[in-house]
Amino acid sequence: MTNTNKIPSIQILNQIKAVIFDFDGVFTDNRVIISTKGEEFVICDRGDGMGTNLLAAAGMKMLILSKEKNAVVTSRGKKLNIEVIQGCDDKLPELIQWLQKNSIDAKQAAYIGNDINDLECLSHVGVGAIPADAHHSVVAAATWILQHNGGRGAIREFADVLLDSR
Amino acid sequence: MTNTNKIPSIQILNQIKAVIFDFDGVFTDNRVIISTKGEEFVICDRGDGMGTNLLAAAGMKMLILSKEKNAVVTSRGKKLNIEVIQGCDDKLPELIQWLQKNSIDAKQAAYIGNDINDLECLSHVGVGAIPADAHHSVVAAATWILQHNGGRGAIREFADVLLDSR
Amino acid sequence: MTNTNKIPSIQILNQIKAVIFDFDGVFTDNRVIISTKGEEFVICDRGDGMGTNLLAAAGMKMLILSKEKNAVVTSRGKKLNIEVIQGCDDKLPELIQWLQKNSIDAKQAAYIGNDINDLECLSHVGVGAIPADAHHSVVAAATWILQHNGGRGAIREFADVLLDSR
Amino acid sequence: MTNTNKIPSIQILNQIKAVIFDFDGVFTDNRVIISTKGEEFVICDRGDGMGTNLLAAAGMKMLILSKEKNAVVTSRGKKLNIEVIQGCDDKLPELIQWLQKNSIDAKQAAYIGNDINDLECLSHVGVGAIPADAHHSVVAAATWILQHNGGRGAIREFADVLLDSR
Repeated sequence: MTNTNKIPSIQILNQIKAVIFDFDGVFTDNRVIISTKGEEFVICDRGDGMGTNLLAAAGMKMLILSKEKNAVVTSRGKKLNIEVIQGCDDKLPELIQWLQKNSIDAKQAAYIGNDINDLECLSHVGVGAIPADAHHSVVAAATWILQHNGGRGAIREFADVLLDSR
Repeated sequence: MTNTNKIPSIQILNQIKAVIFDFDGVFTDNRVIISTKGEEFVICDRGDGMGTNLLAAAGMKMLILSKEKNAVVTSRGKKLNIEVIQGCDDKLPELIQWLQKNSIDAKQAAYIGNDINDLECLSHVGVGAIPADAHHSVVAAATWILQHNGGRGAIREFADVLLDSR
Repeated sequence: MTNTNKIPSIQILNQIKAVIFDFDGVFTDNRVIISTKGEEFVICDRGDGMGTNLLAAAGMKMLILSKEKNAVVTSRGKKLNIEVIQGCDDKLPELIQWLQKNSIDAKQAAYIGNDINDLECLSHVGVGAIPADAHHSVVAAATWILQHNGGRGAIREFADVLLDSR
Repeated sequence: MTNTNKIPSIQILNQIKAVIFDFDGVFTDNRVIISTKGEEFVICDRGDGMGTNLLAAAGMKMLILSKEKNAVVTSRGKKLNIEVIQGCDDKLPELIQWLQKNSIDAKQAAYIGNDINDLECLSHVGVGAIPADAHHSVVAAATWILQHNGGRGAIREFADVLLDSR
């Protein structure tokens, strides 16, 4: 896999049957709002929500795979009707197990992540995509560098391109 | 109607008697803040609020027409004293019915929307306006591409130009 | 008074004994966060808070004069120990009365505002300052166009320049 | 210490055993969200949190030293497992005492701060770092001007460079 910001070929995109998302920095802009009581809030994007709706309508299987164990991930997953696995420091084994359970080959999966703990998952799947503002440590492992930032359209862009190719 | 970012002619603007607004991405920057309890918050602009006040003072009829059924839409509508119809996946029939009920011709109406589910409404009315950061799928259908982003002055700009033309 | 973004002369700045602030768009970035329950939140800047602390330490009299009647204005005023008058649609009479009560001449007062309802106050005082992102309708009335945006350093910049001139 | 945005030499960075952080403008973007009830919220960055995790894993001692006495500082410190001293108007004596208690020489300490009340601490330690958007009054005292803003990656950048040098 070469390091390029080019969109993967239609041939490669047409193989994709499942999308696995990191949460912070992908569904969000990687920021967290903190209250005096320690409650956390995150900032998502309605356009990205429209993107996952379009992917679901096209029959794509989806999973949110998050390091943070946080009720906001549960909330967002429920709202968008996407399965959630959270609180996993080591993501790759979880990803592999989920793909097996759903009988999906790694080449048929896309992963979107933004930081160093997404490195293994990005390299494992057929399409490893990162938002424009991902940490520099994952750039080399990415197949596809999206033009939009995390929590600001990266998921919608991914969905638009994937679905336009069909 | 050609696709252009030019302001519609004074003649066309002077016909406008009603403005229908999409909510997310027009009154807001299309983002949503999510709490651990799943509560949602949106970010609006006082300058846009000043814009709808100016439109109301000029006798303009107004409606917020939102896909999301959400208490924040109700809140904002109440604060700005604007009628709200929400939770409608198919917006055009609602728009047509509202125009009929208020005896307003489609040419006398402006619609401001930002995403693919606003496409039909944008094309139906006399002036179809979109914020500068609208999704690319609605650009072709827009009469008027505003210079400000959604939730960051697009509505105020619309109001200023419309009222300056009178 | 000519329309310029130049800093007023040291002579003019040294006359200033009082600063009157609009709230939204000056202490804030003019945005408002809205909850499903209709509660409002605004976004302020710690650097601006440091600015009003420095002005207070230099003996400057201060007032927040806000169109919005809102508990967030009360909260912020209390935190920064600044007097608040709010819920006034017509600001100039309130400003004149406050100046009289405090025996301050209009030439000894600075006003910072960002929108059309600040126009009269900006023109009335010795120094009428506006944030970089103020509405275009107040630019002509401003003595001083600050380089920072509202809620993002405009007040701190005002304080730094005013105090550096002494 | 000369005023430069160059990264300190590997020799200097390798001496660092402890990092002391200002809170507002370093862990946050220096903004504060205010509710109608006067509750305050701040905005932090998951990437910065990853940065302090990496520093902790490398055995670095850490302290948050904040002027504001605020429950959000306590919350963030607890979440990231970093010691907190807050509510101190005069930071240098607290810094000196903490270094002594932990048997750390000033040359072995780095301090990250963004405003005028961080000036003495920045000058006291071996490495005085400031975010890209720090107040101009601290630029002259800084050894290292980070390329990222406060609350938007400044801490992660600091951690990445410090740990890459080992």
